[in-house]
This record gives sequence, structure tokens and C-alpha cells, in this order.
Amino acid sequence: MRAPTPRSDESVFSRFFRREPKQSRSRAAVDAVIQATEDLVARGKAIEDLSIELLSERAGVAMGSFYEYFSGKDSVVGVLIGRVTRANFDHLSAALAAAHHETLEALIRDFSRTVVDAYLAHPKRTRMLIDGIARLGLLGVVSEERDRFALEMAKHAMRFLPDEEPARVEATMRLAADTAMGILGFAAHRGGDIDHAKMADELAEIGLHLIRRHHPRASK
Amino acid sequence: MRAPTPRSDESVFSRFFRREPKQSRSRAAVDAVIQATEDLVARGKAIEDLSIELLSERAGVAMGSFYEYFSGKDSVVGVLIGRVTRANFDHLSAALAAAHHETLEALIRDFSRTVVDAYLAHPKRTRMLIDGIARLGLLGVVSEERDRFALEMAKHAMRFLPDEEPARVEATMRLAADTAMGILGFAAHRGGDIDHAKMADELAEIGLHLIRRHHPRASK
Repeated sequence: MRAPTPRSDESVFSRFFRREPKQSRSRAAVDAVIQATEDLVARGKAIEDLSIELLSERAGVAMGSFYEYFSGKDSVVGVLIGRVTRANFDHLSAALAAAHHETLEALIRDFSRTVVDAYLAHPKRTRMLIDGIARLGLLGVVSEERDRFALEMAKHAMRFLPDEEPARVEATMRLAADTAMGILGFAAHRGGDIDHAKMADELAEIGLHLIRRHHPRASK
Repeated sequence: MRAPTPRSDESVFSRFFRREPKQSRSRAAVDAVIQATEDLVARGKAIEDLSIELLSERAGVAMGSFYEYFSGKDSVVGVLIGRVTRANFDHLSAALAAAHHETLEALIRDFSRTVVDAYLAHPKRTRMLIDGIARLGLLGVVSEERDRFALEMAKHAMRFLPDEEPARVEATMRLAADTAMGILGFAAHRGGDIDHAKMADELAEIGLHLIRRHHPRASK
């Protein structure tokens, strides 16, 4: 096993704060604002329809406190994107680490399902995040997170591909991650009902196809 | 053959003009500004580094004329994105219509190559466009273009899949288009050298995999 991949620069997201909360009381206020925003968005509220008044009120935080930590709505959205990106990454990494798959196929299938469930659990939130990531110029940061995640995947897949070059397995996993994000991201953006099991199956089949194609010696 | 898919609302892009050019002389001035912007971007200039002065000077247009048609840089970028989106769509549709493929596999392989060449001919321009599309909130418009294009693809593929439900072929082509855009878009965004033939091969293999999986009766 290689050393853990370094975490992408935290300051990318912390720069969205006007001032970072240090004390537990100010952290609680910030958390309440982020939580209120997330709840409203998950219920289908568009960012345009959120006002600082509404967010502060829902969070039970005075407007003055709001402006101590956030400069405005985009500041909240930037921090929220950072938190969700981190939470998704941690959740997926933990799921990878906890599972003990007997075969590469089982790993890929189980993992596809975990990814779909994580990203589509709140499709409205995902859509808002995609738009926010785009608008705030965070595509690069999210790309890095995805690449970092592909490395984690490669580490796990290597158990079943002992004779393959790590760099080639990593390239395959990057391709699989790009594909998954293309399909999931566009589906979430398009809206409408999505059948998680079917979508997971789709991603798993593409992932297995990529592995078979690029690593024909792969143990089944 | 069904009726042609209606064109997505032109006004989506024309709203980026402060005032739309009507006379041929004003159209020429606008074209010169767009062309100058495209050239600078293709040579690696970042949008942040472009000034209205520079664009006007390169275009040989007075600053006064510039502001007659554009309200600023984002206004130029919006119009440019609209033109490139339309040009890509027309180019790809024409390529599909002109070719007479003997097999579905030949259609998919040839088409994958055309798509890769179109999107990666100017990777820096593509990267700028992706960022611009994101920043200006145009993801939805581009999604619609992609879906519209998947319908065109489906019409051509139907020749080889006469017994399949059109709606199912369309769904497969949408999936293929999402995958291709995921892979191409992220690759262009990541930067670095991309081997067109290898990338086209990758996309074709995924497309064929999707067809085999969802249309097992497909004629080869």
C-alpha cells in the first residue's frame, strides 16, 4: 500500500468564509446556517430564492452574526460545497475500506451502488451543488477530488490485479470516475426520477467493461 | 424518419448581446470581436487576462462600437459559447448525414473520432468554454443540445436496429453522449496532451458496449 494521497488544499473552501469560526459557539452558528441552507435546497428551493434573511431566520442566527462569518449567499454556497465534497469523499472512502470483497466484480458493483446512493440521495441538492460548483469556478477543485478518489479505487482494485502496472490501473479508474460523474452529474442535472439500482448497474457494467478492456488478464 | 428536432431557443444565446447587430457592417464588427476572442483563447489566454481594450484593438473595432453590441467580457463569452455550440452541432450533424456506414460499428467508430476531433481540436478553447458555460449558468442549455444531438444519433442508429423501440435507442444514445461528454470534458479540463485516436477508440468501445448491452439483438 502506498502512502495516503494528500488532501486537496482545505483553504480552497475556507476562503469562502469572511471569517472562519474558531469558538464552539461560532462554529454552531455557522453549522446552523449551512444546515438550514442544505435543508431548503434539498426541499427544492433555488439558490436565487434564498435570502440572507430567510437563512438567518431558519438557522436561528442574527443577521449580524451571519455577516460575521459569511459575506453573502455565495459564501454560504461555497462552504456548503466544500463540506458536501468532503463528506462524500469520506463516506465513499470508508465504504471502500470497510468492505471485504471476494472478487473485483463484487467490489465494482457494490461500489457503484454506494456512489449512486450518495450522489442521488438528494438529487435537488446535487443539482444545486453542480450549478454552484460551476458558477463559483470550482470545477478544478472537484476534478482533483475525483482524481484523488480514483487513486483510492485503484489501490483497492490492485488487490485483484497484482500483475498490472499501478499507473495503468489508476488510468482505468480515472476513466471510470469520469464516466460515472458524466452519467450521474448529467442525470441529476436533467432532473426527473432516477432508478438507483438501474443506474448503479449501468455504472458497474461500464466499469467492468473498462477493466476487461484495459486489463485483460484481470482475475474475475 | 421523424420530424427534425426543434432547435433550442436561439434567444438563450442572443440575450448575451447588449444589442443584436442587424446591418452587415455591425455584424462584421461583432464577428471580428468574437474571432479575436477565440484566437486569443485558443492561444492559451485566460479570460481573466482579456481586456475590452485588447479585444477591441485585435478586432480593429473602436471601443465605442464594442459597447454598442456587448455589455462586457461575459457578454462576448456568452455569444462565443453560443456560436461554438451551434457550429459543433452543425458540424457533427453534417458528418452524420454525409457518411454512409455499412455497419453500426463503423458508424459508432467514425462518429467517435469526429466528436473527439471537434472537441479537442482546440483544447484550450474547450477548457475556456467549459468554464464559461459553467460560470454563466449555461449547463442546462448545453444539456439540451446534447440531448438533441443524441436524438440525431438515434435516428442514424435506428437504421441498424429496425426492431428496437425508438425510445430505448434514444435512451442508449443519451447515455453514450453523457459518457462521451464526461470523459472528453474532464480530459479537456484536466489539460495535458490527449491522444485523439486512443480517446476516440475509448469512446467507441464504451458506445458499442452500451449498444450490445441494451440492444442484444443489434445487427453487427
